Amino acid sequence: MATLPNGLSKPDRSNLVPFSSRLKEGRALALDVWTIFSAANLPSDCINLGQGYMNFAPPRWVTDAAEEALNTIAPNHYSHPRGRIRLREAIKAFYGPQLNKDLDVESEILVTSGANEGQYSVFTAFLEHGDEVIMFEPFFDQYLPSVTFNGGKPVYVPLHPPKASIERPTSDDWTIDFDELRRAVTPKTKMIIVNTPHNPVGKVFRRSELEAIAAIAEEFNLLVMSDEVYDCLVFDGKEHVRIATLPGMWDRTVTVGSAGKAFAATGWRIGWLIGPKSIIQPTLAASTRIVFCSNSPLQEAAASGLELAKEKKFFEKQLEEYAERRAILCEAFDKLGLKYTLPEGSYFILLDISKVEFPEDYPFPSSVLDRGRDFRACWFIATEVGVSSIPFYCEEHASIGEAYGRFAFCKDVDTLRKAAEKLQGLKKYLK
Amino acid sequence: MATLPNGLSKPDRSNLVPFSSRLKEGRALALDVWTIFSAANLPSDCINLGQGYMNFAPPRWVTDAAEEALNTIAPNHYSHPRGRIRLREAIKAFYGPQLNKDLDVESEILVTSGANEGQYSVFTAFLEHGDEVIMFEPFFDQYLPSVTFNGGKPVYVPLHPPKASIERPTSDDWTIDFDELRRAVTPKTKMIIVNTPHNPVGKVFRRSELEAIAAIAEEFNLLVMSDEVYDCLVFDGKEHVRIATLPGMWDRTVTVGSAGKAFAATGWRIGWLIGPKSIIQPTLAASTRIVFCSNSPLQEAAASGLELAKEKKFFEKQLEEYAERRAILCEAFDKLGLKYTLPEGSYFILLDISKVEFPEDYPFPSSVLDRGRDFRACWFIATEVGVSSIPFYCEEHASIGEAYGRFAFCKDVDTLRKAAEKLQGLKKYLK
Repeated sequence: MATLPNGLSKPDRSNLVPFSSRLKEGRALALDVWTIFSAANLPSDCINLGQGYMNFAPPRWVTDAAEEALNTIAPNHYSHPRGRIRLREAIKAFYGPQLNKDLDVESEILVTSGANEGQYSVFTAFLEHGDEVIMFEPFFDQYLPSVTFNGGKPVYVPLHPPKASIERPTSDDWTIDFDELRRAVTPKTKMIIVNTPHNPVGKVFRRSELEAIAAIAEEFNLLVMSDEVYDCLVFDGKEHVRIATLPGMWDRTVTVGSAGKAFAATGWRIGWLIGPKSIIQPTLAASTRIVFCSNSPLQEAAASGLELAKEKKFFEKQLEEYAERRAILCEAFDKLGLKYTLPEGSYFILLDISKVEFPEDYPFPSSVLDRGRDFRACWFIATEVGVSSIPFYCEEHASIGEAYGRFAFCKDVDTLRKAAEKLQGLKKYLK
Repeated sequence: MATLPNGLSKPDRSNLVPFSSRLKEGRALALDVWTIFSAANLPSDCINLGQGYMNFAPPRWVTDAAEEALNTIAPNHYSHPRGRIRLREAIKAFYGPQLNKDLDVESEILVTSGANEGQYSVFTAFLEHGDEVIMFEPFFDQYLPSVTFNGGKPVYVPLHPPKASIERPTSDDWTIDFDELRRAVTPKTKMIIVNTPHNPVGKVFRRSELEAIAAIAEEFNLLVMSDEVYDCLVFDGKEHVRIATLPGMWDRTVTVGSAGKAFAATGWRIGWLIGPKSIIQPTLAASTRIVFCSNSPLQEAAASGLELAKEKKFFEKQLEEYAERRAILCEAFDKLGLKYTLPEGSYFILLDISKVEFPEDYPFPSSVLDRGRDFRACWFIATEVGVSSIPFYCEEHASIGEAYGRFAFCKDVDTLRKAAEKLQGLKKYLK
């Protein structure tokens, strides 16, 4: 309480009405990893491989369509809450063959304000208070609050890390114990979140794995939210299987895509959901009330991107570029003799940081001190070596997450080469 | 159930997992007024004065900044969840003087994916299950689901329509019974929604009215969400009072603004919230989880708009244009001898449609037949006369809403003149 000149106390008006309990349940008030490891908190010359956004622009032939839209009338105004028809048609043409479906643009496609809002809206549309949602750990950190804000309860099933005996593990060596998954199902379970290619592991789920998940979903009548925003980044000829295409799964699966990941435009906030009318219609009802509609000019750009991608062989070329980027980082880790998970998909590499030694009395900020060893290790690497990464989220199986730092390679080759060089500075801190 | 060739029934898989009960509570599955009165359902030559979007483009000097952003790197990627610093600085410079506050861009301003998402996030951040939110009827229809999706309960207090004896009513003749407002407060009340200038009434709340609302908010420790998205459209020299500037009210008020309304760009989905840290921080926590951040290129454009508006006298000129637009419609109604509410703010006119007669056996679609008389009257006018309007939402005080149709005048002068001419066709249907 502040003291007034007359000696009386001034009542504290700084928090008159308390915020809702869901913020605490959703861990939404804790200092998040992005804030802790934001550029502002790290040395100014630190190379940011933490957050997963590109340091290059979207292709000019994609942004052209946004400029055109800005110079006309309708695409500056409200879009239909389902999304602009041009974009829905482009999604139909692009994804229809991959899903073996003649998609109905009026009922099976929903454009959302980023994949994130799309997923949030699915939870709003389907979760009753106390419903359980199964997710694999480590997981994309937005899943937790998206579920709990809508009354749901996350249930964690671990992806088991590669056995220590594997010399050069790949993301395929992260495995699911299907008995464990099955035991996680209760009468309250409503949904399973699948994320393939997986963030942060890079795992591209095998057909057999997806079949096993599908069997459980069928048996217990569960929805599947299949977050496939990294679908354009699957390396080494690995097959990206869409769980929605497995027998019986279309009816219970919503597939999530993202223009930001596809076209190097994470700030456009254009994503999409594809699924049966029984999932898309309620989700539309939710999304319409949450954001009303998504921004119009960048929907036009995304549409143009999907329309022209094939002709321009865009995704093929982009994949080659990402493979080169991945190779630069891998080589740097190889040179250090550090283990990492070679990702078969996504633009992340999990580095095993258990061999990185740092003094226990290192001047860590308090935001890092009371978290896991991974927070301290990532902080130490960023500060001492000048390359930032992100400790990744595990809620229940923290010991899995603690051994790894996530490095993003969605950066241009020059930046990655510089990072690779700097990373060699780690050598003197290795056990 | 479909029948298989072998005579057995195929199980119906069209709705395997039921959607959540909140969709029904939030009236989110009912055929909404926008769908019923969408252009697709009306005669092709019908002039659309229903939905409140402009049929003109945003100023070129505003879109220029978006084009510039598209051609650089960072503004194509994630913005800070609080919003881009350039836009937050522009909001500070523009609104600070109006709010008599040296706004802190780090804690008192939040950029949102449209004003709608901003308001939704306030409810997410503050409502506990069963909390009551007072709103004045008629009300902007998104308030209802935004409150109920977040566990809240809307409580309706009517704006009383002008007395029948008033020959030429203005929006100022819509009045609040403050005893009625006070009686609506219960121990569960957490928030009051103020909307000034008001949609659809056009009412610009008087200082004395806001003072009376403020007194109740103070007495019962309520938050005030002040939706002021039409703040740049206040006519006839009327003073737009911001309730946040009244004594003691800053601490409990969040003020809502919109780039879409300000710059004729409803499809950009850029809005903002301004308020004390105690409201903005929890709302940031909610918004970050719902949409993560808002689209970046159009934040740059909105920033440029606010930066240059004063120098270009943009809002002064725009107001003059809107005054001319308003005059065209008013004149048309005067000529018909129909009563309407002259709006002192916003871009809507409520037309008293009680004197419009239509045959009870008119071929109305079923979506209109089971709603109020206003739905039938607006449908009849759109079909017979070729100008569409929107029956406006009242949940509890339907009799108030039933007497009016809402006509939007956010259209260019030529379109409004054509509409005015067509509207004369109503003459033969008047009592």
